[in-house]
Parts: sequence; structure tokens; C-alpha cells
Amino acid sequence: MKKIINQPSDVVNEMLQGMATAHPELLERFSDSQVIHRKADTPDVVGIVSGGGSGHEPSHAGFVGEGMLSAAVCGEVFTSPTPDQILTAIKASDNGKGVFLVIKNYTGDVMNFEMAQELAEAEGIETSSIVVNDDIAIEDSTFTAGKRGVAGTVLMHKIIGYYAKEGKNLDELTEIANKVNDNLNTIGLALTAATVPEVGKPGFDIEDDAFEYGIGIHGEPGYKREKIKPAKEMAKELVSQLKATYNWEAGDSFVVLVNSMGGTPLMELYIFWNDVQQLLADEGIDVKWVKVGELMTSIEMQGLSLTLLKVEDNEWVDALKAPVDVLAW
Amino acid sequence: MKKIINQPSDVVNEMLQGMATAHPELLERFSDSQVIHRKADTPDVVGIVSGGGSGHEPSHAGFVGEGMLSAAVCGEVFTSPTPDQILTAIKASDNGKGVFLVIKNYTGDVMNFEMAQELAEAEGIETSSIVVNDDIAIEDSTFTAGKRGVAGTVLMHKIIGYYAKEGKNLDELTEIANKVNDNLNTIGLALTAATVPEVGKPGFDIEDDAFEYGIGIHGEPGYKREKIKPAKEMAKELVSQLKATYNWEAGDSFVVLVNSMGGTPLMELYIFWNDVQQLLADEGIDVKWVKVGELMTSIEMQGLSLTLLKVEDNEWVDALKAPVDVLAW
Repeated sequence: MKKIINQPSDVVNEMLQGMATAHPELLERFSDSQVIHRKADTPDVVGIVSGGGSGHEPSHAGFVGEGMLSAAVCGEVFTSPTPDQILTAIKASDNGKGVFLVIKNYTGDVMNFEMAQELAEAEGIETSSIVVNDDIAIEDSTFTAGKRGVAGTVLMHKIIGYYAKEGKNLDELTEIANKVNDNLNTIGLALTAATVPEVGKPGFDIEDDAFEYGIGIHGEPGYKREKIKPAKEMAKELVSQLKATYNWEAGDSFVVLVNSMGGTPLMELYIFWNDVQQLLADEGIDVKWVKVGELMTSIEMQGLSLTLLKVEDNEWVDALKAPVDVLAW
Repeated sequence: MKKIINQPSDVVNEMLQGMATAHPELLERFSDSQVIHRKADTPDVVGIVSGGGSGHEPSHAGFVGEGMLSAAVCGEVFTSPTPDQILTAIKASDNGKGVFLVIKNYTGDVMNFEMAQELAEAEGIETSSIVVNDDIAIEDSTFTAGKRGVAGTVLMHKIIGYYAKEGKNLDELTEIANKVNDNLNTIGLALTAATVPEVGKPGFDIEDDAFEYGIGIHGEPGYKREKIKPAKEMAKELVSQLKATYNWEAGDSFVVLVNSMGGTPLMELYIFWNDVQQLLADEGIDVKWVKVGELMTSIEMQGLSLTLLKVEDNEWVDALKAPVDVLAW
């Protein structure tokens, strides 16, 4: 295993310490906790908390700051954070208006965030939540009942963060989050596997000339393995899966996110987007806004995901375009 | 070669097309050119142009926008752009106050940018330039007389972009750029090699358990190869090289950039920064500001670089902190 780390068991602790000391004006880490929260919190609005296992950086600590998250809970690599850590994040984010939780659909995350919600309610903090399940590749995967939560979660952070800042209450945020989730779908592919530091070897084997559609952000198996082929054919497969899910019509409006799994460089993301753009244009899709970058990764895995959000409310586009003060948007 | 591309010869063209269609409000590509420029240019200030070979994304097109670059010229992968392409960028960026060029020190870049300057002057456009040569690893490298220009170039973009927006003229920008360049030093390391699409295989061989100090952003040889070791020992080597260069004293002020070569994930950058932070604290260095991310890459190479800028003028820190409207800062 070639990585720039010290002890594999220390990677999350050292990473969080590094984030806090690199950006002291923006972020704070509660000492010895796995919680990164905003240094300056806005009073009088609902707090927004997200998190999950580490290894998906910049998710989620890279989105802590004005206009997105109040705090991120960062579990060990590919491991759900514990309820007490999540509770710490909730308490740090409550300004009396309650806290909204954005949870990716993995069984451990859902269980621990729900437990933390119960603990918070017992302490008098009102909470609500959304379980994002945007990955259309696989139903019932290695760590998940139902569809997995993947890169679309970051669009959820951005939209909910915007509405929270606008002063929406917990009920209103819950309604918006459900509507966004219903219109959010993602599908990915991977060329290589990630190596979890404490494991020391790649999470799965893949041939030197192969790639796989539908692999999850923890290396969960996908649905089809093929010999490497041109980007435009990969784009055709992913777009056709999304088309079947939405059953769209010409003139429908979408937002698009092309996300790197970590090891795939920006050059390839833009080449892939160039192919997706042509396919969507052929379908008569009205693309309202596009984001391209590394937002929800799987450590150093090579691959990408394509997320679409059907624009049911034009204000969602304004929400996505609104400026924020975070590290990685 | 496993990459998400179509024809290797089309990668730069398709990437630029993708950038332009993904971000039509921010960026424009002159048709069939290798120039990405700001959609809306600010009148009455000096234009700022940078560029070089592609493969270093987000450098440089990711820094085009308000507060940084007016245009970026994107040559073929690891290949200098031609003088006529650079001239196109200069013409697109001139608002009557002239154009300042930020050039990385590679023999081809320096020659072609200088030729473009002459062509621009012949057309009545005033120009000036800085040749950034921040890499202290190697003197006279594969493509370079003197020290190479690497990640520190992005700090130069940011500082010069700020002063241009503030209304400084060409002479003033030249003076500031020279002062910044004199205080800017970088040193890197690589764990793996990048594969140029048209070459189809890694640019150099490196053992599965080795890494090399001082490798350039085109895979040029470094100065020392070792077995993989803890991040804190890598940090110690890079910091000691920088210390010898600056001959610093306790209390000196610096800005720090930890940059990924492309394939190294954020987790490792922050772990490495955590070690650098402790070493600088031990030296009594006053760290004014820190940037961590993927700014100057070598396609999918795993590795990182550490840049320091000695703060000779506190306004440089304000310049680095000032908000900008670009894709990748």
C-alpha cells in the first residue's frame, strides 16, 4: 500500500486535526471528537448536519460553512459514526430552531443517525431528517437495504443549506428534502478499487483492461463489468439508465453533477460531460446548471458518477448557484 | 491504459468543449481555439493571462474568472501552447490597459509566451510578464533551464488577479509579481507516474514500494528515491529543504499550499499538512493562511507538493483570502 499516511489507525484523527488547523477561521473540531463544525454559527435558523464514514472527502466536512452544513460527523474510513458523535454534532448545530440531518442510505448510518435523533429529542432538541437514496445502480447492496445514498447527497446539502439560511423551518425543510430526493438519481462506474488504509489492499479485484458499472462508493459490486471502452459509450450506458428511471420527455429540465470517485482527473470528467451533454441535447433535455468536480469520492478510486436532479422548482437552481463559504463546493 | 476518454488525440479539444458547455455563464471558448476566457470581462483593468500544457487541471482554466485570470491558453497534454493561441488569449484579455502574463518556467512556454508578447506589442497591446520558477528540487531539469514553475504559480494567479482587480497598472503588477516570485518556493514528491493519453503508458517506472522526492509535474526525474515511509518523515524532508532555501528565523510569516498531484486524495493532503503544521510550529513559523487541494496536477499522478510563500507584505494574505468567481480556487 502506497499512501501518504502515518499509522493506518490514525488517518481520520490526523485528517480532522489537519482540517481544523488548516482552516481555523472557518472550521473547528471539538477536541478528540469526530465532529467538524462551523466556527461562526448563524443564530436563529435550523442547523444542518451530515456525515457518515470517512474516505469520501471532501464529503462531508468540506461542505461545512455558511450556506451549507453546520457540522459534519466523520466516522472511521467507510464506517458509520457512532450515535454519541452524531449527538455532539447535533448539539453544536442547534440554535433553538432544531437540526435537520442529511443521511446517506446505508444501514449503519440510518440506524446510528436515528439513535442520535432520539438522544437529541430526549435532550429537548427538535430534529428531522432525510435519507438520501439516489443510486439507481443496485437495489439492496452490501451495506444497504434499498438504494444507496451517493453523490446526489451533496446537491441535497447545497439546496437544504440554502433554504435553511433563508429561514425555512424544520417541517418546510423536510418537505423540500423529500421532494428533492424524489427527483434525484445517480449512477456510477469504476476503473480501479480504493484501498482502505487499515485493510492495506484494494477492496476488490478488477482486470487491467476492465471497468464496472454501478460500483458503490465503498467498492460494493456493481451490475456489469466490461472491457474498457470510449467515454461516449460509457456516457450512453449511464444516460440510458437514467432515462429509464425518469422516463423523461423533451423539454424537461435537469441539473447535472459529474463527480470524480477520487483518482479520476478533471480532464476525464469534462471529456465525459462533453459526451453526456450531446446525449442530453439529442433527447431535448433542458440543462439548467452543471457541476463538475470531486465531491463524493471513494478515497483514490478511479471512476465517476453522473447525477441528475429533475428541476421541479426553479428555485432549486437558484439554491445551487447561491454563493457559499465552504472549502469544497 | 484505463482512462475515461475517446481518441487520445482529442482529449484537450473535448475537455475544453466540456468546460465551455458546463459553465456557459462563466467561461467561453473561442471556437476551435485552445483559449478559455471569461464570459464577462471587467473593463478598465489589466488583463491576466496564464497557460501552458494541459494535464495540470484545474490549472489554468479552472482559475479563469473574476479576481483571477482573464484567459487561459491550454496546449496539448504536457506541450506548450503555440504563440498564435497565446496571442488569441492576450487579445481577448486586453481592455486597453495591457495584459500581464503568468508563465511557468519551461523552455517551450517561455519561448512561446515571449513570441506572443512580441506579436501583441506589434499589434499595439502593451504586455508584461513573470516567469514563475518556484520548484527548488532541481536546477536545469528535462524541459527547463533553471528552476521549474509548479504549484506556486496558482498563488501568483490569485495575488496578481487581486491587484489587477484593484486597478494596479502593468508596471505595478510586474513589481509585485517579481517580489512574490522571489519569496515563493515549492518542493514535491510522487508515488506513481502519470500516463499521457497519446503515449499510453506511465511516464516513468517506479517500484510498488517506492516514492521519489522532487519529481516534476511532467514526471521529470527528482533527486532521491526511497522506500515508502510515514507521512511525517516525508514532511520532515520537504520542510528541511524549504528551511535551507529560506534560511528562516522564528517569527517569520508564511502562507502554505499543500497541493495534490491528482491521484492523491484530500485525506492524505490533510494528514501531511498535520505533520507540516507541527514542524513549522516547532520552528516558530507564523502561518498566516493555508490552502489544501488539487490546484496544479500531473493528470492522475499520486503525490503532492508543498509550497511556501514568505509574507513580505501583509496585503498578500488579504489578496489570497479575497473571494473570487472561478471554478477551482
